[in-house]
Amino acid sequence: MSWHTRQRPVCLEKRFEFETYSATRDFLDRLGQHSEATQRFPDISFGRTYVNITLRPEDDAELAQLSEADHTFASEIDALLD
Amino acid sequence: MSWHTRQRPVCLEKRFEFETYSATRDFLDRLGQHSEATQRFPDISFGRTYVNITLRPEDDAELAQLSEADHTFASEIDALLD
Repeated sequence: MSWHTRQRPVCLEKRFEFETYSATRDFLDRLGQHSEATQRFPDISFGRTYVNITLRPEDDAELAQLSEADHTFASEIDALLD
Repeated sequence: MSWHTRQRPVCLEKRFEFETYSATRDFLDRLGQHSEATQRFPDISFGRTYVNITLRPEDDAELAQLSEADHTFASEIDALLD
C-alpha cells in the first residue's frame, strides 16, 4: 500500500496496522531511531495495533510542496517494516 | 495541568510538552511500559516535542461513562513524568 497525498496543508499520510502491541512498539522504536538518525520528526499517532504517520514537506515554508526528499523519507519508513 | 474531558464520545485528553525529542521519547517509553503492565492502550499522538493522549472509558460499551478507574489511569500517566 502506498502513501496518500493530502492537500491544504500538503502532506503524505499512511496507516500501518499490526497484529500485536509488541509489533506496533517494535515499529515505533525503529521509527524513533530513524527519526533521530535523520533528525526528522513526523507527526505520529498510534494505538494498540496501528500507527498513523503524517509527513509534512521538509521545507516548512507555508506553500511548500512535497519534494523528492519527502518521498524518499516515506520509502525509508516503509523499509523499516522489513 | 489537569485532563480535559470531552463528550461524544466521552474521553479524557491531555497534551504534554517537552523541551527535547529525547525527553519526549523517554516519556513515550514509560508510557509504553505502563500500557503493557496494565494492558491498557490509549490513543497517542506525538511529534518531536509533544505527546497527546486520549483516554476512552475502560468499559467500551457505546454509552460508557468515565469511571474512577479511568481517572486513576490518567493520574498514573501524570506520575510517569516525575
